[in-house]
Amino acid sequence: MGSNTFGKIFRVTTWGESHGKAVGVIVDGVPAGLPLSEKDIQRELDRRRPGQSEITGPRKERDRVEILSGVFKGRTLGTPISMIVHNVDIDSRPYEAIRNRPRPGHADLTYWLKYGHVDYRGGGRASARETVGRVAAGAVAKKLLSSIGIEILGHTVEAAGVKVGREIKNEEIRKNAERNPIRCADPEIAKKMIDRILEARREGDSTGGVVEIRALNVPPGLGEPVFGKIDAEIAGALMSIGSVKGVEIGAGFEAPRLKGSEMNDPFKLKDGKIVCETNRAGGVLGGITTGMPIVARIAVKPTPSISKPQRTVDLKEKKEVTLKLKGRFDPNICPRIIPVAEAMMAIVLADHLLRSGKIHPNSFEEGK
Amino acid sequence: MGSNTFGKIFRVTTWGESHGKAVGVIVDGVPAGLPLSEKDIQRELDRRRPGQSEITGPRKERDRVEILSGVFKGRTLGTPISMIVHNVDIDSRPYEAIRNRPRPGHADLTYWLKYGHVDYRGGGRASARETVGRVAAGAVAKKLLSSIGIEILGHTVEAAGVKVGREIKNEEIRKNAERNPIRCADPEIAKKMIDRILEARREGDSTGGVVEIRALNVPPGLGEPVFGKIDAEIAGALMSIGSVKGVEIGAGFEAPRLKGSEMNDPFKLKDGKIVCETNRAGGVLGGITTGMPIVARIAVKPTPSISKPQRTVDLKEKKEVTLKLKGRFDPNICPRIIPVAEAMMAIVLADHLLRSGKIHPNSFEEGK
Amino acid sequence: MGSNTFGKIFRVTTWGESHGKAVGVIVDGVPAGLPLSEKDIQRELDRRRPGQSEITGPRKERDRVEILSGVFKGRTLGTPISMIVHNVDIDSRPYEAIRNRPRPGHADLTYWLKYGHVDYRGGGRASARETVGRVAAGAVAKKLLSSIGIEILGHTVEAAGVKVGREIKNEEIRKNAERNPIRCADPEIAKKMIDRILEARREGDSTGGVVEIRALNVPPGLGEPVFGKIDAEIAGALMSIGSVKGVEIGAGFEAPRLKGSEMNDPFKLKDGKIVCETNRAGGVLGGITTGMPIVARIAVKPTPSISKPQRTVDLKEKKEVTLKLKGRFDPNICPRIIPVAEAMMAIVLADHLLRSGKIHPNSFEEGK
Amino acid sequence: MGSNTFGKIFRVTTWGESHGKAVGVIVDGVPAGLPLSEKDIQRELDRRRPGQSEITGPRKERDRVEILSGVFKGRTLGTPISMIVHNVDIDSRPYEAIRNRPRPGHADLTYWLKYGHVDYRGGGRASARETVGRVAAGAVAKKLLSSIGIEILGHTVEAAGVKVGREIKNEEIRKNAERNPIRCADPEIAKKMIDRILEARREGDSTGGVVEIRALNVPPGLGEPVFGKIDAEIAGALMSIGSVKGVEIGAGFEAPRLKGSEMNDPFKLKDGKIVCETNRAGGVLGGITTGMPIVARIAVKPTPSISKPQRTVDLKEKKEVTLKLKGRFDPNICPRIIPVAEAMMAIVLADHLLRSGKIHPNSFEEGK
Repeated sequence: MGSNTFGKIFRVTTWGESHGKAVGVIVDGVPAGLPLSEKDIQRELDRRRPGQSEITGPRKERDRVEILSGVFKGRTLGTPISMIVHNVDIDSRPYEAIRNRPRPGHADLTYWLKYGHVDYRGGGRASARETVGRVAAGAVAKKLLSSIGIEILGHTVEAAGVKVGREIKNEEIRKNAERNPIRCADPEIAKKMIDRILEARREGDSTGGVVEIRALNVPPGLGEPVFGKIDAEIAGALMSIGSVKGVEIGAGFEAPRLKGSEMNDPFKLKDGKIVCETNRAGGVLGGITTGMPIVARIAVKPTPSISKPQRTVDLKEKKEVTLKLKGRFDPNICPRIIPVAEAMMAIVLADHLLRSGKIHPNSFEEGK
Repeated sequence: MGSNTFGKIFRVTTWGESHGKAVGVIVDGVPAGLPLSEKDIQRELDRRRPGQSEITGPRKERDRVEILSGVFKGRTLGTPISMIVHNVDIDSRPYEAIRNRPRPGHADLTYWLKYGHVDYRGGGRASARETVGRVAAGAVAKKLLSSIGIEILGHTVEAAGVKVGREIKNEEIRKNAERNPIRCADPEIAKKMIDRILEARREGDSTGGVVEIRALNVPPGLGEPVFGKIDAEIAGALMSIGSVKGVEIGAGFEAPRLKGSEMNDPFKLKDGKIVCETNRAGGVLGGITTGMPIVARIAVKPTPSISKPQRTVDLKEKKEVTLKLKGRFDPNICPRIIPVAEAMMAIVLADHLLRSGKIHPNSFEEGK
Repeated sequence: MGSNTFGKIFRVTTWGESHGKAVGVIVDGVPAGLPLSEKDIQRELDRRRPGQSEITGPRKERDRVEILSGVFKGRTLGTPISMIVHNVDIDSRPYEAIRNRPRPGHADLTYWLKYGHVDYRGGGRASARETVGRVAAGAVAKKLLSSIGIEILGHTVEAAGVKVGREIKNEEIRKNAERNPIRCADPEIAKKMIDRILEARREGDSTGGVVEIRALNVPPGLGEPVFGKIDAEIAGALMSIGSVKGVEIGAGFEAPRLKGSEMNDPFKLKDGKIVCETNRAGGVLGGITTGMPIVARIAVKPTPSISKPQRTVDLKEKKEVTLKLKGRFDPNICPRIIPVAEAMMAIVLADHLLRSGKIHPNSFEEGK
Repeated sequence: MGSNTFGKIFRVTTWGESHGKAVGVIVDGVPAGLPLSEKDIQRELDRRRPGQSEITGPRKERDRVEILSGVFKGRTLGTPISMIVHNVDIDSRPYEAIRNRPRPGHADLTYWLKYGHVDYRGGGRASARETVGRVAAGAVAKKLLSSIGIEILGHTVEAAGVKVGREIKNEEIRKNAERNPIRCADPEIAKKMIDRILEARREGDSTGGVVEIRALNVPPGLGEPVFGKIDAEIAGALMSIGSVKGVEIGAGFEAPRLKGSEMNDPFKLKDGKIVCETNRAGGVLGGITTGMPIVARIAVKPTPSISKPQRTVDLKEKKEVTLKLKGRFDPNICPRIIPVAEAMMAIVLADHLLRSGKIHPNSFEEGK
């Protein structure tokens, strides 16, 4: 049984193996009339592709998206939007050698245990390449969000043990995050992060980090008790990204160290509206948005592909062996995970905007 | 739109407001033939009820469960199992006074923003009382799990700023966790936790903590790429519990501080089977179980109900006011959240056992 | 695996066995603020209960509904509405004798084949008693529909071989259908139907019929291509009722005998709006409502319970036997199936009104 | 909101507009290890393509399917199977002229009412071209079915007013149905049907018919009470095909004319197994398969595209006009609807085989 569809109204179905013919996505449930072009999608895909800098993998994926359906004369039709990216520049030979030797930290072993028959080339379906579909769908979601003023911001707050360690303003993220390879909003810290990442790479090793995603101008009232709480769905969405080992909302794992009087955000009036004075809740109370920014952070494990020798088992020969992976890998995945995490946040929000009647489910025009 | 159903095959639907006539749950998708009695359910409900000790709320909820359908002659029928717990010993008067004054840290405000018309008595649907249904459903799930040897263990690893700070053995949890009010597996640490909790309560304040849930003897191969990854669904399930602000699997938020060579669990052979030498992955790789224990931790915020005065807004009079809550509240929710978190873990696993064909969907007997 | 939930936004989950403690239903996804009382539900339940006349079964089910959640101060909360009807006046003894002898035309055999362990008393879950939950949920749906002027009408157009054989006006249904035991809108035809039904009963036999359900004042634009077409969902909903062997929309099985020029309803203008001159499409084109009345008919098989001896197999003794059922049965199920079919039609429409944004998903007031 | 996904475990998502770049389908939930090639798909697509004879439309769609994912070395991977068929030989010019003039009997008007912005070229998403995706998915389902011996047969039992009027043996369908343009299992009747179809076409008109689909060797126990009954899902699936106005199972609309003693199929023993002596139930009791053949029939309306002048409304000019469609259309859609209806039947069965544990959800090999 597979579960390659996400969402209730805004429904995203990704498909494709890393070294297959193509990867792609169907986005169903987008209202008719939304302006949309391949350029909107391409912009986000370009942010996730490898080969952007010295701290991301060197492969030159060209990743040209093509919209195959659901858009006519520059606007959506309300029908499924099918998008495809052909796989090019693929070299599957390195994987032939290790096809019976599951890489530690990867899904090779568990796919084999579950399915028996697997595509061992380049991680197959478990590859980060699957996120091409997520990012393309996220671009559609962002387009929908931007129509009512919602903005998604992502940045790295910790990498290779180096923490930002201070409150970052939205403006800093907008200004700085896309200007350095690690996507950190503090340029000085960014340099330190990169130094440490490169240092580990020289040792044949990799590093992890923490990425923060913010959603601004989110209307209050999004989220559905008791299992469709928006923080629950955000947590599920972000945890479904490879390499993510933890998710926190607002104060997150700091909350246990606070007292109730410190954690509870006091309510006050501002221009006749009820707002929270602080935002330790991270924009969500009882699973429903308060109107404050949604703030989520994810723990990103170090890239499992490393050059150092590792111990594994040969599935065919049934013996323990040492594995030495060849090639150059992303020494830190944080900057490339940011567009994916933004996409998942955008998809959850788009779905809830539709589920809560904030955007009309049939026609974009009618909702205006 | 409501989302009160969880699961794909093992499907749980909870219903009921805190001060309504009753709360309850429907569990659909349980195979026929599973031995089940009210005693199985009652045992778990007794673990979550308040009034068990000085650090949980004093209300004497009697919480007697009644199975209304789906069980015949001591065994399940494959039809929906309807369970009900009547609400007794309810005093809604304190809530009348504050019905227009949303309590900070609670869902009062967001429900009002979303629905307009709300049941303000005792938190209504957003009350922790809703978890009665979850725990009852979890008891059914546990019954299913135990038939193939899966065991769920829960314990408090941090409370009121006091951390256990060492690796706890499964045996310690089995032996100690249910024997102290905070459900900590280390009796010495438990005392310190309780001291701090009571200290905060004397100040009219509350505290939070971190709870760990382990699932042992989980078969490999559970979890469905790419959106039904088992860690993604566990994260969503746990985050859907009130007061939870973070979820981590395995190394969790420690993973970003490790290098790839430290994070990757090496594979080795043990009795002809492939196992992980360590378990930093927390039993999951690529969203599929490895066969190692699943280990999840949740960040529990301090109980939002406190005696200290708090600032809020009167929704009717449209002015800022000070709120002073009366009554005695759970000064720390960790021990009572444990059976709920265990229940959600059990529900996710039961669902995946059915989804992956490890348990036969129609008949319990056939699966044996 | 069970499938006891119907609908995407307006979601209905029924539970309960015929001779268990109770039957009931959860309705999730009803917007907050809808006026609703037990009286609204009871009225519809009274229409489906047996013992109303000589052509329905004699059991005196009292069927008092109780709303357990989701309603506060006479209005819905947006939370799940749980409703229960206790089973009283039950005599399971007749079923003990035939517990290993599946009744022809009933689900006894197939439940046994599927589940192994079954509740053989009174048909268990396969009993028509399950429809209590459907009718209760349908009453909620009808309340929602009536708020925007939609009316559901049901009547018998054929019974025991006697056909109405002419076009019936809506006004005739409103005036006559509830005034005779067979719920036929033509009082003269009704008498003939009843004569034939009683004639068959005297022979220890039963009869079937055709029931028509109309939905008036349905807004155009309901229905979701390509698998959520409204006629597809109506067909599925109606076919899920026990004893239904066929469903048709508009011209239905007469359509194959028409030519395209006869079948196609011409479009014309009426008060500035586009309407169909005729309604052979039955209110649906391409799975989306046109604004014309939705007209559906169902083929109802003769009641499977008959007094005549029937051939069956003893499951335990593995031999062919003759079965003679005792008791008095509904000699014709059409009049009692009408409220159930109306309920299913209402549920499908309520779901689509919410799915298409015609009614606001969170708040009934907001949609006005 | 769109609903372009069908099924619970075997999940089919179709996409694509008639005159867009391509049409296609994602099939999720197919177990790993099933042998599958493009040839398996192409065979079924060739059966549905137009231009096969004088009674189907003349367009020469080439319809070459390409499998883009989910298959590796000739076997399925358990991951989503993405299939694409590029649209070629498209001439959208005739549709420009009528873009504001909805064709009677078509979905032009309802799509416009629902979505506002539509692709008017060739019916867009409402075109029969969408069924390419269904047939491709059905071919995968058939492959799965055939692995446990299930066979799907389709044939025309009535066309243009000519009925077969006798019981047709399975062998006749296998031998004759694919050998004449109307796919009738009786060659003599087939000729009469074709004569009448051509006669109507000469008048610029079209005709309808009735198609029967049989599923043989279906294991007992498929179907999920109470809303996932297999006959309910078959009815919904078949009614979701364009031009279908009615669905019946077994005796269908003849059942109302039978008495209980005639309708009930007696049970008897055959080789130690319980079978039905007759099959008026059409293979389903209480929504669960009996093991007898499933027999479903659909009422197919006359093709809505006709050459005769028709009355419609110009949406822009807001006036009534006469519409004269140019081109050559399928004068009878029955033969081309057969592979589509077979596909939907196969998809429902494949889904239920997985839902009921008859086929293992992860691995095809494990199920053997």
